[in-house]
Amino acid sequence: MSSHNLKPLIIIGGGGHASVLVDILRSQDREILAVVSPDDIAHRSVFIGIKHLKNDDDLLAYTPNEVVLVNGIGMMPRSKIKRKINEKFLSLGYRFETVIADSAIISEYASLGEGVQVLPGAIIQAGAVIGEYAIINSGAIIEHDTQIGCYNHIAPGSVICGQCVTKEDVFVGAGATVIQSVNIAEQAFVAAGATLTTNMPASSICYPSRAQITQGDL
Amino acid sequence: MSSHNLKPLIIIGGGGHASVLVDILRSQDREILAVVSPDDIAHRSVFIGIKHLKNDDDLLAYTPNEVVLVNGIGMMPRSKIKRKINEKFLSLGYRFETVIADSAIISEYASLGEGVQVLPGAIIQAGAVIGEYAIINSGAIIEHDTQIGCYNHIAPGSVICGQCVTKEDVFVGAGATVIQSVNIAEQAFVAAGATLTTNMPASSICYPSRAQITQGDL
Amino acid sequence: MSSHNLKPLIIIGGGGHASVLVDILRSQDREILAVVSPDDIAHRSVFIGIKHLKNDDDLLAYTPNEVVLVNGIGMMPRSKIKRKINEKFLSLGYRFETVIADSAIISEYASLGEGVQVLPGAIIQAGAVIGEYAIINSGAIIEHDTQIGCYNHIAPGSVICGQCVTKEDVFVGAGATVIQSVNIAEQAFVAAGATLTTNMPASSICYPSRAQITQGDL
Repeated sequence: MSSHNLKPLIIIGGGGHASVLVDILRSQDREILAVVSPDDIAHRSVFIGIKHLKNDDDLLAYTPNEVVLVNGIGMMPRSKIKRKINEKFLSLGYRFETVIADSAIISEYASLGEGVQVLPGAIIQAGAVIGEYAIINSGAIIEHDTQIGCYNHIAPGSVICGQCVTKEDVFVGAGATVIQSVNIAEQAFVAAGATLTTNMPASSICYPSRAQITQGDL
Repeated sequence: MSSHNLKPLIIIGGGGHASVLVDILRSQDREILAVVSPDDIAHRSVFIGIKHLKNDDDLLAYTPNEVVLVNGIGMMPRSKIKRKINEKFLSLGYRFETVIADSAIISEYASLGEGVQVLPGAIIQAGAVIGEYAIINSGAIIEHDTQIGCYNHIAPGSVICGQCVTKEDVFVGAGATVIQSVNIAEQAFVAAGATLTTNMPASSICYPSRAQITQGDL
Repeated sequence: MSSHNLKPLIIIGGGGHASVLVDILRSQDREILAVVSPDDIAHRSVFIGIKHLKNDDDLLAYTPNEVVLVNGIGMMPRSKIKRKINEKFLSLGYRFETVIADSAIISEYASLGEGVQVLPGAIIQAGAVIGEYAIINSGAIIEHDTQIGCYNHIAPGSVICGQCVTKEDVFVGAGATVIQSVNIAEQAFVAAGATLTTNMPASSICYPSRAQITQGDL
């Protein structure tokens, strides 16, 4: 690890995604100086004992030399919030920590960009390349040779088969499947549960056939 | 662990679900006094060397002070059998063991009710609450802050995203996906492979679009 | 392990599937004498330092007594290439190594045929039987008592529930789900993302309802 890995951390965001990241970092005995969130965070036991800052700018009291940041905002489809925050603080000289759960299964022959987050039980195979600041969420599978773009969110339990390429800001929803050798352009959104078998143009949406809800006997 | 965790166990049921539980418990060196099943169980090698009782009432020879029970009946949708057996023996003073596979990935900041069963490779994230006697089956993912009701069965490979709430007796089928912040009322049934994106009323059923089977070349 | 497990290995195939297998075998400190592939393999870092043979027949320079083979060809639906290669070298007296990722979760009470490949994060439960030369790919789940036929490929993230039976040459695609007690006949193909709830005749295909790709706002 480079030396900045040993610096104390500040978490931006105090919601569910941040709680999962703090859970991982605590289990790895990382020092967490503060969680920054405008909202109350006291109901989440994972944050107990960590200083609570209310405003993003409160973290400017810590210099880029003293701390490394963790972006705890769970990126939603088409949302630019996570990216804007990253870019603001990167321009001020801060860096974002790469966070990898101990239970993630990552090939030695995969490559992860700075600030990537790999959550519990995720699998990343040989030859895969994960772009900067992407989230590979719980139990997601990135197969061999697949290239995931910057600021992607590959949601829990989704499967991206081998030799796929995703561009920046792509969102692949929970439980979705992308077959091998598919290309997904910028800002495309594969909805939860969808099975993608063709390339997707920029900013397009892939919806699965809708489930039906009925009443009655089985 | 509380002291009852060290007591010997009796397994109710001798089918596939019971075999998975006994497999886990044997790997953890738990003492298993007997498997209770009206059926022949000799074809399952996992039960070799364990006493076979034919009738539920045979276990009354062991007092609630001597043993802890494990309900090995795999709950099917709308079936009340597992629950009725639990309630009968709970009323007699018995308790049901919580069974957690070593390979399950469970946050320190999640909460599990008594008698919960978490099978191999399942993931339970920070802030999740699992109701009593629920089954979180193999490889299922329960995301942050999601509340799973009592006597639920979350089947293998299914994904429940963050901030969902399920009430009692809910069944989520294998490979199903439930997106974030969805509420599922009592006895609802999400069929295998379905993607649920809206709330479900009590006793409702969510079916996926049906797959088609054809003949021919690829 | 039997003694042949300690022999050096030769890998047939130099693509993505072979790279995942070599990754596993290197992490287990297995000696790999050569990778056989007509294609250039230098772009895959996992193969660095391993001798590259261009032609299958080049491996005949090594006797069946000296080496064990690993078939690194990822079987595609209806493709017979992997099987033909296995049968050719088996008839010459060679054997194929069983390859099991350390992160796979395999019951002591499951049974694996010779030459089976179980990839990272896959789960195989008690009573399951995996036929010779089958691939259980990354994160796939084989539930209790299910019998997988010879030369099957169970693709990443798929779920086969309990008490299913698949015959030879079956392909279950990525992210597919097969509910309990389903029988799948020879050469049937369950496409990626499909949910199979009925038996399948030989050489049939199960397609999921197709996802729709649109443009527009969310």
